[in-house]
Amino acid sequence: MSKQVEFFFDVGSPASYLAWTQIGALAERHGAEVVYQPMLLGGVFKATGNASPATIPAKGRYTRVDFQRFARRYGVPFQHNPFFPINTMQLMRGAAAYLGTDRFLPYVEAVFQAMWVDGKDMGSPEVIAEVLGGAGFDVTELLQKINDPAVKDRLRQITERAIERGVFGAPTLFVGEEMFFGQDRLDFVEQVLAEAR
Amino acid sequence: MSKQVEFFFDVGSPASYLAWTQIGALAERHGAEVVYQPMLLGGVFKATGNASPATIPAKGRYTRVDFQRFARRYGVPFQHNPFFPINTMQLMRGAAAYLGTDRFLPYVEAVFQAMWVDGKDMGSPEVIAEVLGGAGFDVTELLQKINDPAVKDRLRQITERAIERGVFGAPTLFVGEEMFFGQDRLDFVEQVLAEAR
Repeated sequence: MSKQVEFFFDVGSPASYLAWTQIGALAERHGAEVVYQPMLLGGVFKATGNASPATIPAKGRYTRVDFQRFARRYGVPFQHNPFFPINTMQLMRGAAAYLGTDRFLPYVEAVFQAMWVDGKDMGSPEVIAEVLGGAGFDVTELLQKINDPAVKDRLRQITERAIERGVFGAPTLFVGEEMFFGQDRLDFVEQVLAEAR
Repeated sequence: MSKQVEFFFDVGSPASYLAWTQIGALAERHGAEVVYQPMLLGGVFKATGNASPATIPAKGRYTRVDFQRFARRYGVPFQHNPFFPINTMQLMRGAAAYLGTDRFLPYVEAVFQAMWVDGKDMGSPEVIAEVLGGAGFDVTELLQKINDPAVKDRLRQITERAIERGVFGAPTLFVGEEMFFGQDRLDFVEQVLAEAR
């Protein structure tokens, strides 16, 4: 497959979850491959001076309504996580650890589900262990991976590369060097993929 | 006409311009009336703690690309204003002055055109006089209106009411009490108007 769409995301971002529910089928419709790029949104915010919309109370209230509207449009379950915002460093290191393996998609799926459908406190190591153990992951092995310097480096490098390319939030998608920010730009991504050879 | 869509905007906002190019025809398609609500975006930002995306350099660079993409989709001219950001207090007082008269739409049209198509320095009184004089406005009369305490109050009241209703940026549209932020939510506005009686 020659067509690719890069998907930069963080599991702590509700807009990343919404885009995640759509990106696989969208790419498939155009014979494109999704190149998953787990990054640390907190690192992106720090480097760019950006912040979560939730830091502005009126905007935070509105985005919850907005996300619900898109969830209805997509026909996917969604609820705001009562523990938001959650530090996703450990979870994203886990995603970086499984990247390139057949455990990557099931891992991210389980975490997104716990975070944005089941409303779990995914900042708590006990809850993470419960959720991922329940999804068939070896939690001891996962903890080892998360503390592996090579895994930490992988997440850091993807995040730094994202920032270099102009990423300031999540999700961000690239088709070649064309950048699209937000789960609400999937129609533009689809258009570019449809026109790409 | 019983259907209404309220359109809160500031002429200094490129997204407000893009929405402006669409809102008239959109409302007409659904037999709805546009209730124009000129507000001072600077006042909204101050009250809510929000800021222009342009204050984050990476976001500012991206939004310019994003606005161009929407301009192409809409088939309307658009260029980033080289003098952005422009203090729009006087211009928005002018909009408040003409609100409810048959000069309102021509006034806003002339200002949007100068700002987001012709790239004029609309922070300069001389340029404002030239642009609006050229569009057939009596500049002396306009200056009197702008300095009228009743006009200042009107703009302040619309802005304060917007903030009370949850507005944090521009454009913001309401259908009843359903709020939609951004020129990229016109499809949702259209859907709600289509369903409304």
